[in-house]
Amino acid sequence: MSSTNGLDPEALAELHSLRESIDNVDAALIHMLAERFKFTQAVGRLKAANDMPPSDPDREKRQVERLRALAAEANLDPEFAEKWFNFVVHEVIQHHQAIANGDKD
Amino acid sequence: MSSTNGLDPEALAELHSLRESIDNVDAALIHMLAERFKFTQAVGRLKAANDMPPSDPDREKRQVERLRALAAEANLDPEFAEKWFNFVVHEVIQHHQAIANGDKD
Repeated sequence: MSSTNGLDPEALAELHSLRESIDNVDAALIHMLAERFKFTQAVGRLKAANDMPPSDPDREKRQVERLRALAAEANLDPEFAEKWFNFVVHEVIQHHQAIANGDKD
Repeated sequence: MSSTNGLDPEALAELHSLRESIDNVDAALIHMLAERFKFTQAVGRLKAANDMPPSDPDREKRQVERLRALAAEANLDPEFAEKWFNFVVHEVIQHHQAIANGDKD
């Protein structure tokens, strides 16, 4: 507790409780991301087998619009939701290209 | 359907089904992220009110180790999990600094 000396014990208890909740949410997020990757890997294999292009800008545009609207409803910054989505899609496209190039993951 | 002419209808039906699942997972992810931000904003307010520093490298190190282990169990690339976590934490720290500076969000 050396880094917490002198701090209000109630504030520390509250911090501990909030961190437990964050850890619970993060575990859920990691598992949902794992499930998302299973689906996008299946899409990648399907696209590679059928000579479809790895990325689909029209689909991505619709996804961004939808996620921004969902974020706004949930009181999450739509700009953050869009940046977050672009980060995840960037990773997915790299995976698709690896599959199209014959790499196995 | 101009962009899908000549493609196998079964492959297109499979693509459609996978995309529905991805959209469902994304809606869940956005709502979990919204919940995560509610908790981290509460942490930000608590830290600002108690003069705690906005970032906590020891806590973040433990979080990264835990999330990498959870990712490995769920068959998600731990490197991706870590990059994803750093992306989210970077956003959170910006929010905390804004709260500490007296901005309201």
